[in-house]
Amino acid sequence: MDIKDLCESIKKYEGKEVTLEGWVRNNRNQSNFGFIDFNDGTYFKSFQIVYDKDLKDFDMVSKIRVGSALRVCGKIVKSEGSNQSHEMKATSVEVLGDSSEDYPIQPKRHTREFLREVAYLRPRTNLFNAVFRVRSVAAQAIHEYFQSHNYVYFHSPIITGADCEGSDQMFKITTFDFNDLPKDEKGKVDFKKDLFGKKAYITGSGQLHGETFAMCYKKIYTFGPTMRTEKSNTKTHANEFWMIEPEVAFCDIEGIMDIEEEMLKFIINYVMEKCPLEMEFFDKFVEKGLIEKLNKVKNSKFVRITHHDAIKLLKEAKVKWEFEPDYNEDIAKEHERYITEYYDGPVFIKDWPKDIKAFYMKLNDDNKTVAGVDLEVPGAGELIGGSQREDDYDKLIKRMKEMNIPQDDLVWYTNLRRFGGCYHSGFGLGFERLIMYLTGVDNIRDVIPYPRTPNSCDY
Amino acid sequence: MDIKDLCESIKKYEGKEVTLEGWVRNNRNQSNFGFIDFNDGTYFKSFQIVYDKDLKDFDMVSKIRVGSALRVCGKIVKSEGSNQSHEMKATSVEVLGDSSEDYPIQPKRHTREFLREVAYLRPRTNLFNAVFRVRSVAAQAIHEYFQSHNYVYFHSPIITGADCEGSDQMFKITTFDFNDLPKDEKGKVDFKKDLFGKKAYITGSGQLHGETFAMCYKKIYTFGPTMRTEKSNTKTHANEFWMIEPEVAFCDIEGIMDIEEEMLKFIINYVMEKCPLEMEFFDKFVEKGLIEKLNKVKNSKFVRITHHDAIKLLKEAKVKWEFEPDYNEDIAKEHERYITEYYDGPVFIKDWPKDIKAFYMKLNDDNKTVAGVDLEVPGAGELIGGSQREDDYDKLIKRMKEMNIPQDDLVWYTNLRRFGGCYHSGFGLGFERLIMYLTGVDNIRDVIPYPRTPNSCDY
Repeated sequence: MDIKDLCESIKKYEGKEVTLEGWVRNNRNQSNFGFIDFNDGTYFKSFQIVYDKDLKDFDMVSKIRVGSALRVCGKIVKSEGSNQSHEMKATSVEVLGDSSEDYPIQPKRHTREFLREVAYLRPRTNLFNAVFRVRSVAAQAIHEYFQSHNYVYFHSPIITGADCEGSDQMFKITTFDFNDLPKDEKGKVDFKKDLFGKKAYITGSGQLHGETFAMCYKKIYTFGPTMRTEKSNTKTHANEFWMIEPEVAFCDIEGIMDIEEEMLKFIINYVMEKCPLEMEFFDKFVEKGLIEKLNKVKNSKFVRITHHDAIKLLKEAKVKWEFEPDYNEDIAKEHERYITEYYDGPVFIKDWPKDIKAFYMKLNDDNKTVAGVDLEVPGAGELIGGSQREDDYDKLIKRMKEMNIPQDDLVWYTNLRRFGGCYHSGFGLGFERLIMYLTGVDNIRDVIPYPRTPNSCDY
Repeated sequence: MDIKDLCESIKKYEGKEVTLEGWVRNNRNQSNFGFIDFNDGTYFKSFQIVYDKDLKDFDMVSKIRVGSALRVCGKIVKSEGSNQSHEMKATSVEVLGDSSEDYPIQPKRHTREFLREVAYLRPRTNLFNAVFRVRSVAAQAIHEYFQSHNYVYFHSPIITGADCEGSDQMFKITTFDFNDLPKDEKGKVDFKKDLFGKKAYITGSGQLHGETFAMCYKKIYTFGPTMRTEKSNTKTHANEFWMIEPEVAFCDIEGIMDIEEEMLKFIINYVMEKCPLEMEFFDKFVEKGLIEKLNKVKNSKFVRITHHDAIKLLKEAKVKWEFEPDYNEDIAKEHERYITEYYDGPVFIKDWPKDIKAFYMKLNDDNKTVAGVDLEVPGAGELIGGSQREDDYDKLIKRMKEMNIPQDDLVWYTNLRRFGGCYHSGFGLGFERLIMYLTGVDNIRDVIPYPRTPNSCDY
């Protein structure tokens, strides 16, 4: 049986014989008895197995190494120790797979840098075990939120032939042998001979495709991997990450902020309810005050201000900035921090200067700003970026021309404005950013099972 | 409000004023009154809007084109027509976005081939609307099944530097300009200068990585996109598709069959419960007898036979085969069909000749077969492929050598057998195959929003 099911109904099993299969986290023993910290991965806490001389294989068992896989049978009894309410008194222990002398994960503190080098073993430590379970549970929270609100889960394509995002940020894919590329009559690589009969890329966003489905299902969301070529070696950038991109028809910028706020509170609630032990662990060892921070967010009403008012606030602040705030510019990390601290909670910043935002954002009546909105949260900065989309065909085309977006590849996208277009909005939530925010872990490499970053693509 | 919420609690809204936003599927009118088939995508069936001369914009409304986006207000009343129990008597109609003369989706029958050419509009038809909602609901069924059974959702990496699957089947990715590739001193392309500092590929499976997490969480599943370069233009192959790959520690081949069977029945139940209108539509217009087929599967006990016995059965059959059954070979489509018809239900075929299966499958005691298992279902053939994995380090290494699998890139994988390895099993379920099976739609291009197949990568 799963240790999770055992621990969550422990009273029911008192006095009963059960069989567990799992791994040894620690094996401490003296001449007449011993304790095994036993973990099967379904539950954060290890379960204590007690064995003594009555066990026929006592000598063998007392030598079992950390990391070994065992099947143990025994009776569940009240524990006399103070660390747990119950334990198992072993009646038989069978080694299913032993571990070796050089097993890297010993019961001691390992640095995160070392653990990244043995990424395939790191979820066997408390920290990473907790991180990747929260990752799984948060993913389910997202699915449950959207599915229960009548959204359709839309699988946007990963491979695209359209160069609409600017190929600089997209990986190119091919089936060719790089050292034997077919050439056309002009000596250029002949992609007509490649699998798709043309150049192909990996998309960096599913939003444009998502809009096509929102224009008939009303509410859709994507949730899938995204790959970008950014050569950025920071704690918050990876070249492969997961993203959630909801798109909602008949929804304006205020409506999409409502949805973002409701969704985020739902996820926080869900994770805190399903992973209390993990959250306690993060609160104690990773980010002191994490649970209080999240509880406060759950119970707050998010502030909504314009980019103009945000810059005004920054300019009026008695702070020496590294980057001077500017009404026509983006806001820097230090600004984000100031604003979320000033309001002591999450802040929506909306109505951004059009020239620093994407072509598809709706132009406001002032002709200077667009209906984009970023959600800034304390400690993590920008968590969500969204906008109302331009639904006026002529304005969209004009904007695409100004920004040199090739129209030919996007006729299907612009046509949405001719065939029953309507006001609609959407946002993008970086899943890893969310996990960092929920766990307090500050490096994106530590919330992705096998991170891909510049010059690093191991496993 | 969503039409789904309205229709599922229609009694509650009788006599009430409501506001709906959605799209016109049809607009039929005479001189004094008219009917709009109104659909907002949250519900399969369109809702009928009735309007008459009392409406101040009657003339405008009677000219509204198919495909237009509207906001309509009105009272919910019992319908006198026979096609629906209730309808809305419109008190105001506002056009949010009109449609054009050349709108391709008119209220008539379109061929699936034509609709593939306007893939971005096809979910506005009944067939595709139903297909992609079932796709979304089936995805949720899968998440709910695994999450409720203590599995961890594991995001396997898409980009890999390991060439372990044979690069012939994998897309290569790069950030280089193909017409200006950096070369090393030998004149070969210098991947040290590429983003990851080495050659990089798109993986065709997350299984090997999944095993690393199963070796600490006990039960994990992946659910993500998969890309393969197969140049196969058939109804069942696509170059981008989604796959589910569960991996379970302390589970043998019989155990994994139990899980596959339970999961499949859970999904069928879930989809039939959540999408009754869609399933009725498929049963009526796509595959006659679909619901009966699925009900039978739900209530059957799946047959389990060995590959040897399957071949024996085929050889004894009084059938003239195109491909003669052979004890050392794979089974052909015609064989699959015969077997599922013979047993009149799903059949697990296990213990395959080792030479036609992957290196990681557990060698049976006969030294000739491996503990692989395929699930064959009536009408769709192979739906799931799984196996118990080789957990003996020496046997695994021997098999890798025999099959020319490079070991250096996979030390982390083989090491799992040294660090608390245990008997474990897993399987791969092609998500599109499942959707084809659940809907009766027989072409994979019609169950993927934007299919990618050889020489086809549009949108």
